[in-house]
Amino acid sequence: MGENDEGDIIEHHAEEEMEKRGARSHAESVTPSDREGHSGTQSSHRLLAYSDALISIIATVMILPVAHTKVEDNEELRQSVQLLLSTKIAVYLMTFMIVTVAWAAHIRLFQVIVRIDDCLALLNLACMMLITFLPYTFSLMATFPDNVLGILLFCGCVMVMGVIQCLIVLYAFSRPFLLNEQIQISENQTFYKEHILKVIMRVPLMCFIASIFSFIFFQLSYVLLAIVIFLPYISRSLKWCRNKAIGQVEETPDSMMFYTYLPNEPLSKERVEAFSDGVYAIVATLLILDICEDNVPDPSVVQKQFGGSLVAALQVYGPEFLAYFGSFATVGLLWFVHHSLFLHVTKTTRFMGLLNTFSLAFVGGLPLAYQLTHEFPNNSRNELEAIQISCVIIFFAGIFQLAIWVVALYNEQETLHPYVRYGGREHVFMLAKLGLYPCVALGTFFLTCFLSKFSAPIFHLMEITVPFAFLALRLLVRAGLALIRLFFCPDGADQRSVVIEDEDETRVPFNALVT
Amino acid sequence: MGENDEGDIIEHHAEEEMEKRGARSHAESVTPSDREGHSGTQSSHRLLAYSDALISIIATVMILPVAHTKVEDNEELRQSVQLLLSTKIAVYLMTFMIVTVAWAAHIRLFQVIVRIDDCLALLNLACMMLITFLPYTFSLMATFPDNVLGILLFCGCVMVMGVIQCLIVLYAFSRPFLLNEQIQISENQTFYKEHILKVIMRVPLMCFIASIFSFIFFQLSYVLLAIVIFLPYISRSLKWCRNKAIGQVEETPDSMMFYTYLPNEPLSKERVEAFSDGVYAIVATLLILDICEDNVPDPSVVQKQFGGSLVAALQVYGPEFLAYFGSFATVGLLWFVHHSLFLHVTKTTRFMGLLNTFSLAFVGGLPLAYQLTHEFPNNSRNELEAIQISCVIIFFAGIFQLAIWVVALYNEQETLHPYVRYGGREHVFMLAKLGLYPCVALGTFFLTCFLSKFSAPIFHLMEITVPFAFLALRLLVRAGLALIRLFFCPDGADQRSVVIEDEDETRVPFNALVT
Repeated sequence: MGENDEGDIIEHHAEEEMEKRGARSHAESVTPSDREGHSGTQSSHRLLAYSDALISIIATVMILPVAHTKVEDNEELRQSVQLLLSTKIAVYLMTFMIVTVAWAAHIRLFQVIVRIDDCLALLNLACMMLITFLPYTFSLMATFPDNVLGILLFCGCVMVMGVIQCLIVLYAFSRPFLLNEQIQISENQTFYKEHILKVIMRVPLMCFIASIFSFIFFQLSYVLLAIVIFLPYISRSLKWCRNKAIGQVEETPDSMMFYTYLPNEPLSKERVEAFSDGVYAIVATLLILDICEDNVPDPSVVQKQFGGSLVAALQVYGPEFLAYFGSFATVGLLWFVHHSLFLHVTKTTRFMGLLNTFSLAFVGGLPLAYQLTHEFPNNSRNELEAIQISCVIIFFAGIFQLAIWVVALYNEQETLHPYVRYGGREHVFMLAKLGLYPCVALGTFFLTCFLSKFSAPIFHLMEITVPFAFLALRLLVRAGLALIRLFFCPDGADQRSVVIEDEDETRVPFNALVT
Repeated sequence: MGENDEGDIIEHHAEEEMEKRGARSHAESVTPSDREGHSGTQSSHRLLAYSDALISIIATVMILPVAHTKVEDNEELRQSVQLLLSTKIAVYLMTFMIVTVAWAAHIRLFQVIVRIDDCLALLNLACMMLITFLPYTFSLMATFPDNVLGILLFCGCVMVMGVIQCLIVLYAFSRPFLLNEQIQISENQTFYKEHILKVIMRVPLMCFIASIFSFIFFQLSYVLLAIVIFLPYISRSLKWCRNKAIGQVEETPDSMMFYTYLPNEPLSKERVEAFSDGVYAIVATLLILDICEDNVPDPSVVQKQFGGSLVAALQVYGPEFLAYFGSFATVGLLWFVHHSLFLHVTKTTRFMGLLNTFSLAFVGGLPLAYQLTHEFPNNSRNELEAIQISCVIIFFAGIFQLAIWVVALYNEQETLHPYVRYGGREHVFMLAKLGLYPCVALGTFFLTCFLSKFSAPIFHLMEITVPFAFLALRLLVRAGLALIRLFFCPDGADQRSVVIEDEDETRVPFNALVT
């Protein structure tokens, strides 16, 4: 009966796994596999979702010290505050980058290991705990650049993580039913194992060397760390660019699908979405965290300063509520665009993941920028600067989303659903969605340059109209298309390509729609 | 060509939807539906994931003011601090409850509406924005209980949310292809629509009355609000209990599956998991948020007070790092138990969701409790209290997880996979996992009562051993079973039920395993 039970379990788990994988990617063809029995294995779906949630929180956490730096309208302190702020922003960006690198490594690892058991789940939790500690080591490095402790802690974390990851790989290869099907059926599992271990151990080994160097000549270890972490990406990108330029055929054998660092190495689309969702959710609520904690006035203060009028007391915080709603709406709408974009994407590549990371890094800065726009007196130079910084951040967050779309179009056969490839109404509609925020941000930026007196009203008007623009976008696009048809069709100008967006997307053949 | 395109889109989306739904629940039998064309509809999967992430953050956000209340070892301030702390804890619990009520309403709504389009996505975002504002209105109510502003704001938010939800329902019913299949094929759609609208409008309407009463006699509006929000649950629970006791058959027609408020009304298992993941992830990282911001010492302080020794400066923060790792590990392991539990669950009911909420509310208090354990001098009364509070919180977090399992066992035919129903090795193993934390917490609690001098070492020992206990749990359970077999089998005591856990789960027939 025990045997029977176990057989049932496996059958169920195998089914569940297949369904999950089916939902995860439509492009991959998944065939049923290992139904022979191993009790206690589970689909890795939820473990990965939890890891994504943890990593996305950690990636954005370093924006908090930036947001909490008080910027006074004081020329004397300006210099020192700006220095402090730029240090903190650097730490934020570095953390975001490192954590997303660790996240990409995690994706790669769990593309090889597709099923888990309790032991792997616990090892993964240990790994997560170390990742969450990385931002702190960066703060130490930034505050005490001459002290080796930051480097040592960072290297220590990375080395322990490397050891845990190796343990995970060794454990998984000792139980082949946990592995990716492709590796499971391949004859040279040992080759795969060695290749993966080699790739994983590379970084901890270099960190070990860096930590030794830190005692001798610590500047060198910073250089070493930078090289270690980004070299594979840089070298691969260069090679890829060269190949694209010269047209040379890629020499990597097709059989080696994992750990190639190629820009078109697949990244699990589901996990890219989950990570992005986490970042957008945290960023959207960052300001409410502060508001709930700091913006409840003290009863005694209300009694003394405002004569007991709570409404008057809350009006002091008015700008912060405005900032909250503004940033929530913007982050929400950028999420909406991201969501629409990834509905059309069938496969994400490493390069698209990188662009997505850049976009998210800018999104992380949004609440801060919005808070700044409301912190200064009207018509001050600071206010104008804060508004322009906000526009720049929105612009870059949007433009990197657009870049994902452009990159996807380059490999549209592989990465996009058929109905959004060049041409077609959905294509135009998607383009309009992606173009709206960059265009509006650019427009607001230049308007505030010319009409610097009205910068705040212009900015607020933008905040209010954009959500309605999104609601009416489908109508707007239809009206735009109808107008174009009206203008161009009577001339019979079928050969012409029409440009309605001010981006590099000029190759859209509207003829199919217009006729 | 445009027509052709649109046909493709729909076909694709319908497929995607079906796969998603297939992955979501195995018990439901899903048949292919609406392949006829409506451009722009999308699977609601990611929208719901994003909403879950937002709501889980908001539910736990009010623990931050609690965590940031400085508790000094000072008898004079003790009273006022305790009052402040208990107010904040009350706000946290109220927020958690209200937000999860809103979340349950959101689940119910999107169990009726299973596909979305851009318009619904944007309306949902607006709804989310209002939910994120609820905790703030609670803080206002708690700080200014005599002022009507808090009530008015709360009622205002709820009313606007009600209007938006009605808009969503009306919009969705005007486009039936967005609806749940069961409603889509039913003949009395209008009946469904009216029933759902009636249920949704009930709360905002009562809030409207409460906001009017607040001007006349505001204490009444608090009562009114409490009744409004919990009455359906209480009345339904009472009715259910009565039926269970007397054995009367439930009079609700089976056709009305939604908005029944029955304890066994299904809640989407996927969303319960996503929400729990979000809460566990936020709670696990709450302490690192503070650590990254506050625990980087100032260079000048290090120079002056510690003679430039960073290590010495960081040793001051040592307890906080310990607290972080301790709480991360505990939350991570509780997540692990939750994850294992829900692997075995096929369908979650409203009652299981409620128990899950209670468990999560205690989990939210964990980081705070852990922080407290390290804040006081050794062997002080405060330290002992903090340690005992931590044990109590862990105990309740664990015991409510166990309660989910017990409730699931009551309807095991519907809610559990066959292989974990009474008996079987997996059943025992699951029970051991669920029982570990409550048992350990209880043990630690009583040990610290007797050996109050060694409370801190005992607690730390517990923190360190539990992860290893989980790693070795499968072995331990096997060893335990082998022992039992050794003791009982030679006697041929096949009829006996054996108790190895100190819970109410005594009905496990081990015979199947033992023989």
